This record gives sequence, structure tokens and C-alpha cells, in this order.
Amino acid sequence: MSYINENYLKLEDSYLFSTIAKKVAKYQEENPYKKIIKLGIGDVTRPIVPSVVNAMQKACIEMGNKETFKGYGPEQGYDFLREKIVEFDYKKRKIQIDKDEIFVSDGAKCDTGNIVEIFDAANTVAITDPVYPVYLDTNIMAGRKNIVYLPLTEENNFVPQIPKEKVDIIYLCLPNNPTGTVLKKEELKVWVDYAKQNNSIILFDSAYESFITEEDVPHSIYEIDGAKDVAIEFRSFSKTAGFTGIRCAYAVVPKTLKGYTKNGKQVSINALWNRRQCTKFNGVAYITQKGAEAIYSNEGQKEIKENIKYYLENAKIIREGLQNSGFTVYGGKNAPYIWLKVPKGHTSWSFFDDLLEKAGVVGTPGAGFGKCGEGYFRLTAFGDRENTIEAIQRIELASRQ
Amino acid sequence: MSYINENYLKLEDSYLFSTIAKKVAKYQEENPYKKIIKLGIGDVTRPIVPSVVNAMQKACIEMGNKETFKGYGPEQGYDFLREKIVEFDYKKRKIQIDKDEIFVSDGAKCDTGNIVEIFDAANTVAITDPVYPVYLDTNIMAGRKNIVYLPLTEENNFVPQIPKEKVDIIYLCLPNNPTGTVLKKEELKVWVDYAKQNNSIILFDSAYESFITEEDVPHSIYEIDGAKDVAIEFRSFSKTAGFTGIRCAYAVVPKTLKGYTKNGKQVSINALWNRRQCTKFNGVAYITQKGAEAIYSNEGQKEIKENIKYYLENAKIIREGLQNSGFTVYGGKNAPYIWLKVPKGHTSWSFFDDLLEKAGVVGTPGAGFGKCGEGYFRLTAFGDRENTIEAIQRIELASRQ
Repeated sequence: MSYINENYLKLEDSYLFSTIAKKVAKYQEENPYKKIIKLGIGDVTRPIVPSVVNAMQKACIEMGNKETFKGYGPEQGYDFLREKIVEFDYKKRKIQIDKDEIFVSDGAKCDTGNIVEIFDAANTVAITDPVYPVYLDTNIMAGRKNIVYLPLTEENNFVPQIPKEKVDIIYLCLPNNPTGTVLKKEELKVWVDYAKQNNSIILFDSAYESFITEEDVPHSIYEIDGAKDVAIEFRSFSKTAGFTGIRCAYAVVPKTLKGYTKNGKQVSINALWNRRQCTKFNGVAYITQKGAEAIYSNEGQKEIKENIKYYLENAKIIREGLQNSGFTVYGGKNAPYIWLKVPKGHTSWSFFDDLLEKAGVVGTPGAGFGKCGEGYFRLTAFGDRENTIEAIQRIELASRQ
Repeated sequence: MSYINENYLKLEDSYLFSTIAKKVAKYQEENPYKKIIKLGIGDVTRPIVPSVVNAMQKACIEMGNKETFKGYGPEQGYDFLREKIVEFDYKKRKIQIDKDEIFVSDGAKCDTGNIVEIFDAANTVAITDPVYPVYLDTNIMAGRKNIVYLPLTEENNFVPQIPKEKVDIIYLCLPNNPTGTVLKKEELKVWVDYAKQNNSIILFDSAYESFITEEDVPHSIYEIDGAKDVAIEFRSFSKTAGFTGIRCAYAVVPKTLKGYTKNGKQVSINALWNRRQCTKFNGVAYITQKGAEAIYSNEGQKEIKENIKYYLENAKIIREGLQNSGFTVYGGKNAPYIWLKVPKGHTSWSFFDDLLEKAGVVGTPGAGFGKCGEGYFRLTAFGDRENTIEAIQRIELASRQ
């Protein structure tokens, strides 16, 4: 008799986006002529930049010729891409990362999800609240019971604080989804020091790194001394270069990073992750990796930075527009996410309903990201300019009613 | 203190292909002018067919235009591809599979590896010997201890036999890697009936389905009555359409398939796999899926069948050439793999050395696929014609020495 992994039955059904979709559909049915503007989902809207399109088209042609055809690639990614990553994302920031510490993958969601497999179920895991739901769900699926929540609140300025309980594995997403918070160097150093003292490991998700605009905000956790001994960094081309439908990301697993057996023996995390990837993954498509490589060309850099600027301008429009309408607003400076405090008397969901009803604008109720998200609301800067401006004007008008 | 998953330490280091590479490099160094012919690795050499290249190029252009750009796609795959799969791979064989039973992925290796996550570690798992190493390794990584080996030997004609022990999960790879064996309908029915009687689940890997040439050999396990209640089928475009460097595959998880809680409650496996994929996977690239869709066009079908024919002709050349040289040979009729019995007095590895030394031909020692592979040797039909012919001529000559 085939037995299932019963940990799956402990997962809460994720009704967030399906509930939103249902409410929106109902509203549209009742208001067939109303244009609904969606600033809810964290997906990009700007097309893939020309350098990347060209590189991928060329790669398609290569795949069609016997002489240049590529079969199985290295599970860890092609050297041509890993070398660019080392050079541009690390060496240029004075960080020394070796090529064989880079693992190219098909997404940061996959990487942050799959990484749980190489750790024991008995670890105590620290996860922020609110949080990107994948961290929590994948730990529940793996049977991890010891989860410590790190509340992100107005009181702590949405900066995760060291918990009283000892934690073995710590998830940090910076710039943060959903709050848009970043940590300054000294704030992040607190966590690196903690991890060093406690032989803990930090899983550092920096998928939104390219949105950082302020000085003294680290773009990589490895800007902090000693972080290579305690942290895995997850990066993605999804938000950096609009790759949500192309699928390319990478994880950095330093060779100095160690985990422990129950007997206290040190084990290389790089070797474990390499084994995991070689056994359960077959590498990213050649065409995709050629596209990712093109991001690092002069043209590519210029083009993707244009898009980031565009989204950051949207973020500014949202942030300032809402502030002018009297809202308390966080994020949106170093992140594509605006975390707004719902007006008194509202819950996340009642504000959602209100905004849809009065302004025809869709956002994401903060409660969907965890208990501490209650009372907040996430808007994203990934829409197009015209719609973003109109959405904010409508919210302004509605808030005067 | 971060604890690792200690099951990883129970894995045997896989020296097979690295040992081969070292031996080949040494031989080449000692014989710099000798052309070595590699018939060892299961990777294709024919380029991607024009229909697919064209479709992917078009999709690249779509990704570069705002109006046709695609961001996140459905985790389960786009409907346009799932519908083609349902129509061509199932309906045409009179099998009724619903669209939402198809899960498009980036590889059968990933799917057969990841599927272990939704099952309890306490299951007893049946795995053939010899075997594709991923089945075994992923089970060890997940902490499964009860593994029953099903020997594939000359005596049982390489057909897996029902074991004495009760088994909960059964891996079947047909056409088989590495032996090239297929099962007739009545032979496969034995396993479906067993699974039905014992509420077991069959994980049916049919990555080599397109190489089947003989009648009465099922192309899908769902050709057997009742299989939809007991089997997950894994398919891949890797060998069907040369997608080893493109990365696209799919799993079929019927909605009637059930697993059990320890309390005997039935749970939908389709729902569990859907949850796993939605949480830890972000779908396959739009460009890739457009490429896969093109395989099902009239032109695409014609083109990929040409390639399959080419490889099957290679298989015939190897099989018949070896037989003429006095070798005992299996497989190669419905599979790209030829499983050859090494001459008396040889082990898998001594034959490897001998073949490299005398003929400059590289194959894979059967012992690398499990204990019962000792005494056998795998050659693959994925080389180009000229090299394949030359390799067989060299083996013929060498065997006369």
C-alpha cells in the first residue's frame, strides 16, 4: 500500500490569489464596462530586452545545426554564464566567489524550495512574518516542526530581530517581499555574526537586488565579512531582466560553508547541493543561459537598467501618490513593492474590497503573507506607467469620498 | 547548529562516468593520433529539427514585444501544449487522459527524482537491477530504507518479476535503460494487476517510448486496463525530439490515482503533485513549450521520426555487427540501447579497457548500473552513422585478434 507524505496534509490551502481572482471576476461581471487595474501580482510586464532576444534567437539557430548543437549541459550551468556572474555580480563588488560556487537553475522559487532537502528535519528554522509563502510551505512539506517566526512590524521598522530561541536555519529576503524593506550593512551584520556564533546557516534571497537605490545597502550578503562561512545566496534574473517566463536564476553556495552531522562532523554544503542538483536536476537550457549571458553585455546592462528604472519610477508614483492621499507607506524605494498601512477600521481584506469597489484597483491583502501582514496591503510597481498613474489617481479620488 | 540530511552520506559516490572519462583521457594521451569513438553516453547528437527551431525563434520574438510578452506561465504547463499531448500521445492510442492530469516539466530526471517527495519514507520500493541510478539515489536521499531489487538477468529475459516481498512503489523503465528490453502487454499487465491488488503505485518511465518498433508492445502503461488507478507515467522530449539541451518533459498523474495515509484514508496523488509543483516549481519557459508544441505539427512529426529512424538504424548496425562478430546481444530493437554480454573471462570493466585499447571505442560497463549489470556492457545508438559503422568495424577486427 503506497503511503503518502502526510506532511502535505498539514499545509494550509493557499486561497490568496484564487480568492482575489474570484472577487475580481465577480466585480467585473457586475461592472462590465469598468477597467480594472491590477497592481497585485509580482509579475513583470516589460518585454525581454533586444540583446537577450537576439542572443536567444542565435542560440536557437545553433541548436538546429549539427556542428553547434548542444545536448546535455553541465548540471551546474555553463562556464560562460557562471564566469559572467562571478565577474559582474561579485568581483565588481569586490567579492571573491569561485565559479564552482555558482549553481545556475530555473528559478529562485525552485532553489529556495529545493534547498530544504539537504538539511535535517530537526533543524529549527526562522522565517519572517509576513513572508514569501514558499519558505514556510516547503519546510512543512519536509516535515519540519520547529519554526520560529520573526515578526516584521512597524515597531521594528520591518527589520527582522534575533529571536530568543536558538535557530539553525534563517530565511532572509532582502529587499523584502512583501514589505519592500532593506537592511543596512550593520543590520545585516547582526545576522551574519549570529549565524557564525551559532553555526547557523542563512538562506539569503536577494531576488530583488537590482532595485536597490540607496547607499550602504548591501547588494549581496557576501559584502558582510564572514558571510561566506554562513550564507547561501539566491539570485534570479526574473525581476532583474524580466525572466519570469524565461526561467533562469542561480544559487551561490560557498565552499567554506559547512553543515553538521548529529555527531558534530562538518560536511560541505557545496558538495551536498552539487549532489542534489546532479541527481535531481539536469541543468538549464542552453538557449536560456545564452539569453542570461547577454544581460551582462554593455547593451544588455543598459537595456535592463532602463526597465528597472521604469519600475522604480512606478514605485515612486505609487509611494508618493499614496502619501499625498494621507496613507502611511513603506517600501518602494529599494524594491518594486509598496507596503501600505490600511486606514483605521479596515482589515487587509476589507480594504481590498473597498479599493476594488471604489477605485477598481486590485492589490494583495497583507494578511495573505502571514498574521503580521494583517492591517497592510501590497501594491507592486510592475504595471505599465499609464495604468499605474491612473490607479493612483483613482485611489486618491476614492480616499476623498 | 545547522544539521544536514545525513541520508546523503549513505549515497555511493558515482564514479562511473568520471572513471570512464579518466581512462579515455589517459588513452588519448598515450595515443594522440587515434580517433576515439564514444558510444557510451545516452545523449543525442542530431540537431533540433527545423519546425522546432522556427517555433522557438518565433517565441523569442514574442517575448521581445510588449503585446505578446509572457511572464509567469502556469506551473502545470500551457494549455496549448497539454492539449497536444492529450490528443497525440493518448487520444490517438485510444487512451482518455484529461488536460489537468498532464504536468509539463523540465525533465524526466527531475520528475522521477522529485516524485519521491510526495510519498512517505516508510514505503517499500521496488527497483530493477541494473537500473537508471536516479531512482535509487533519490530514494536514499529521502531516507527510504526498504528497497527491493528486481534482478534483470538473461534467465528472466530482463523482464522484472513480481518479488516475494510486498512492495508499495514500483519503478519500471520501459523501453529499458540500460538493457533495451520492452514488455509485451500481458507482461506489463502482471504489474498493473499486482499494483491493483496491493494498492501499490507504479512509476512508469517511458522516456524511450518513441523507439518502440514492434507490435503488441504498449507505448503507454495506460494501454493496460486499470492502469490509470495505479500508475504515474513519465515522458520526455529528450530522446523523442533531441531535447536533452532544451529541457522539456511531462508526467501524467491520473485523477483516479490514490495514495494512503497511515490511517488508511485515500488521498489524491494528482492533488499532491499539483501542490508540490506549484510550491517548488515555476513552470517551463514559454519558448520551450512552443518548441515542444511544434513537435506535434505534421512537419514536426515527420522530422522527429526521421531522427528516430536514424538512431534505430544505428542500433541495427550495432546489434547485427556485434552478432556477426559472435557477441550475444540484447536490446536495440525497441530502444537506443544495446546490452551486450561481455566475452567469457571478462568483467564489464576489463572489457571496457580491452575495447578502448584494441578498438578505440568507448561504451559503458554494465556494472555501473547495478550488481546484475556485471558481465554486460551498454552501447548507445545516439552517435552519428559514420562513427557508428566505424566503431562496429573496429570491434569486429579487434574480436578476431
